[in-house]
Amino acid sequence: MSGWSHRHILDLATFSIEDYTSVLELANRFKDVPHTGTRKLPALQGRLIATLFFEPSTRTRSSFELAAKGLSANVQSFTPTSSSLSKGETPIDTALTYVAMGADILIVRHSSTNVPEELAHYLEKTGSKTSVLNGGDGLHSHPSQGLLDLYTLAKFFNRSDPKPETLKGKKVVIVGDILHSRVARSNLWALTACGANVVLCGPPTLLPAQFESFVDSPPPGHINDPVKQRGKIKILRSLKEAFKDADAIMTLRIQKERMRQNLLTDLYQYHRDYGITHESLKWCEKPVPVLHPGPVNRGIEMSSAVLEDSSICLVREQVKNGIPIRMALLYLLATNS
Amino acid sequence: MSGWSHRHILDLATFSIEDYTSVLELANRFKDVPHTGTRKLPALQGRLIATLFFEPSTRTRSSFELAAKGLSANVQSFTPTSSSLSKGETPIDTALTYVAMGADILIVRHSSTNVPEELAHYLEKTGSKTSVLNGGDGLHSHPSQGLLDLYTLAKFFNRSDPKPETLKGKKVVIVGDILHSRVARSNLWALTACGANVVLCGPPTLLPAQFESFVDSPPPGHINDPVKQRGKIKILRSLKEAFKDADAIMTLRIQKERMRQNLLTDLYQYHRDYGITHESLKWCEKPVPVLHPGPVNRGIEMSSAVLEDSSICLVREQVKNGIPIRMALLYLLATNS
Amino acid sequence: MSGWSHRHILDLATFSIEDYTSVLELANRFKDVPHTGTRKLPALQGRLIATLFFEPSTRTRSSFELAAKGLSANVQSFTPTSSSLSKGETPIDTALTYVAMGADILIVRHSSTNVPEELAHYLEKTGSKTSVLNGGDGLHSHPSQGLLDLYTLAKFFNRSDPKPETLKGKKVVIVGDILHSRVARSNLWALTACGANVVLCGPPTLLPAQFESFVDSPPPGHINDPVKQRGKIKILRSLKEAFKDADAIMTLRIQKERMRQNLLTDLYQYHRDYGITHESLKWCEKPVPVLHPGPVNRGIEMSSAVLEDSSICLVREQVKNGIPIRMALLYLLATNS
Repeated sequence: MSGWSHRHILDLATFSIEDYTSVLELANRFKDVPHTGTRKLPALQGRLIATLFFEPSTRTRSSFELAAKGLSANVQSFTPTSSSLSKGETPIDTALTYVAMGADILIVRHSSTNVPEELAHYLEKTGSKTSVLNGGDGLHSHPSQGLLDLYTLAKFFNRSDPKPETLKGKKVVIVGDILHSRVARSNLWALTACGANVVLCGPPTLLPAQFESFVDSPPPGHINDPVKQRGKIKILRSLKEAFKDADAIMTLRIQKERMRQNLLTDLYQYHRDYGITHESLKWCEKPVPVLHPGPVNRGIEMSSAVLEDSSICLVREQVKNGIPIRMALLYLLATNS
Repeated sequence: MSGWSHRHILDLATFSIEDYTSVLELANRFKDVPHTGTRKLPALQGRLIATLFFEPSTRTRSSFELAAKGLSANVQSFTPTSSSLSKGETPIDTALTYVAMGADILIVRHSSTNVPEELAHYLEKTGSKTSVLNGGDGLHSHPSQGLLDLYTLAKFFNRSDPKPETLKGKKVVIVGDILHSRVARSNLWALTACGANVVLCGPPTLLPAQFESFVDSPPPGHINDPVKQRGKIKILRSLKEAFKDADAIMTLRIQKERMRQNLLTDLYQYHRDYGITHESLKWCEKPVPVLHPGPVNRGIEMSSAVLEDSSICLVREQVKNGIPIRMALLYLLATNS
Repeated sequence: MSGWSHRHILDLATFSIEDYTSVLELANRFKDVPHTGTRKLPALQGRLIATLFFEPSTRTRSSFELAAKGLSANVQSFTPTSSSLSKGETPIDTALTYVAMGADILIVRHSSTNVPEELAHYLEKTGSKTSVLNGGDGLHSHPSQGLLDLYTLAKFFNRSDPKPETLKGKKVVIVGDILHSRVARSNLWALTACGANVVLCGPPTLLPAQFESFVDSPPPGHINDPVKQRGKIKILRSLKEAFKDADAIMTLRIQKERMRQNLLTDLYQYHRDYGITHESLKWCEKPVPVLHPGPVNRGIEMSSAVLEDSSICLVREQVKNGIPIRMALLYLLATNS
């Protein structure tokens, strides 16, 4: 992978089109390698990968662990209990413990934005060679999810050669609670970088108007955008309008706590307005794939019938693709640092 | 194992005498194989086994994991935290995530009856090749426990050739809270299939009279009983009467919540009436083995003295036998599907 | 390791100077061995090590697990949930379950003093060959931490040959909540055995006067002290006085609950009186190393500036040294029993 320049993977805002190409090419090669057994790849043998999930998520952690084991790495998991979190140690100090134990890569998930970035800065400042892979931080970024979604769409549009260019000019609709979604933010960077035009669709409380200019300026701390020409972002409030000409649909998890926060009054109303059903999909002019990062609230973000319709619903495909994508990310970090 | 026909292992009600023979024979071969180190068996190398314990049980999960590792499988554990359960995903959808990640066998424990069975139906309907092994569901079934108890008894009666026929005509007493025990239900299917006669003993609140006909009709969804002639089930309320002529005693865990439910007024009264002690064991006409699925409430289900008397108490032996039994089950599922 | 006589590792009170030498020598050999990958040591291949952390501590458990995997052992972790603890089983019975599953070494942490010791006695009484390694019990003992602290200090004083004698005549100051610290107690046995003189420094509520005679008599159940001549223990209440002539400083974690117990009124007052800062360190006559068992409350036990000053703060070094020390302990138990 000539040209891979990222010591850490923190935010897709810093990814060039060449970066996306590297990841998707590598994932596509890893996808057919058995990630268990004697035929698994020895690429990361002798490396120690620590998963530090301060915000619990067995599913994403499992995916990273299977990816790491598939490359023969040694994996150690830190899963803080409420008691250990109450010990008052900072997440950076916890992470440094695993660096001291010899971790080559730290996969960090935290409910606060920028914990992975602060950790990466600290490691660089102190001369450590350990890499940080952001496993999801606050409302900010979830790069591995953004990349597996991109790979899933690219495979849908061109199974034999799923490269980023496949997305060029496609209209991708993202439906739901964009405001509280780090997945949506990572998708916005990835999709627009590949030239897709994104339509965001949701109620104003969950999708403020300023999201239309989300990719117009680099995030704080970054000099300029590594992508010359990005796709456009448009907001539409009506699902029917949004689905016109759509090439793909992504919907997002609704947290029930949004109701307690008065951002949403009624989940059934939400389903009527923004739920993906075979009926609402008729507004599309052709059969389009439906993605969701999971876990799905059946009957809210989408109907059970859509979830179980494997001709259009790519939820299981996304989970499956998560493993080769994460193998690619670990491989790139381990062999280029 | 010619003749093994189970794609999933859900309920011992569907086991024929040949099935019991296959499992016990195989377990007896696996029992002397070191389940760690270079001499462990490569039988499941390259297979991915996921343990999905929605109801937590570190002990049973450990036993399954050691069995899986003993056959060189890759093991991934899903242990839902209260937070992830509150995410509202159905257990079937959680399980399908692990299918999408490539799991060959799902070991599922859930507090609701039939989750493993529903999952198995769904997998078959959708053409998946993944097998389900019921690790305990609701009050319904706990096949691996029923089989390890059977193996423990068969070994007690005939150490050199512990086959199901060894149980024929034996009188096995099961004491305690039969009503709330999936272990007892699995034992009833297994013991009667092998021709043992079972005496159930406990107070009416924990042992309703209808248990005498428990194995008389196949469970819902099953056409007919694969076993031609089963042993008899009898209910006796007095431990003294029950112990007469007994060949073996199984006792069951008492949950303290039974008192809150007014099914039991006093644990000490329970111990006086149904506790296994060296005194109550004198009612038996010979030394008999005592089994318990663990964890034991010392001084309630049995006295500490009985628990620590390894000449009669087989609790540790049961735990030990759990590993070869589970190796046998995983092997049968992996090599016959 | 001729002369290694401990079937279990429970309490440093029973360690002779030869024992400390064996552990430090072995750790120093293990320190450069990669604890992952193909070049890892096969010394414990085929052995099963169970970590039973009744008191949760992901960090210490991770260190033991990496040490065990570094010697190619199979590791099984028991991490009780609140639900499983409420099942009412005794910790000894839980541990015996893992013995029945074939564990060669049990690493046990428990909030009650003497659980590891009781377990060891029970195993010996019943003829089991399984060894117990105390991973921290109540306020009593934390041998692996005491040994890694000793190794860290010995390396600081003599990097090329870190043997126990290196400590002879050194003045080591231990600051803080000695009363509630099993780490301090293990340090007291280890440091005085090696001939170091220890100054204890803290407020009377957290450091009662009787600690000056802590090592004067063997602990209950032990005949006599295996160490002929120990260093001295002195109590000083003023940090300034304590730091005079100091060769090394160890500080201990302050639990916030000490305030609820009225043993401490104010953490900021504590920091002013006993906090390690670059200012208070000026009272030492030379640059001295600062140790802390972690996790650190920044700004309370020590300032963030001290914690991040790797020229004096050995916290990360302690974590790093924990792995070869624990490899040494597991190796000694596995190869001498």
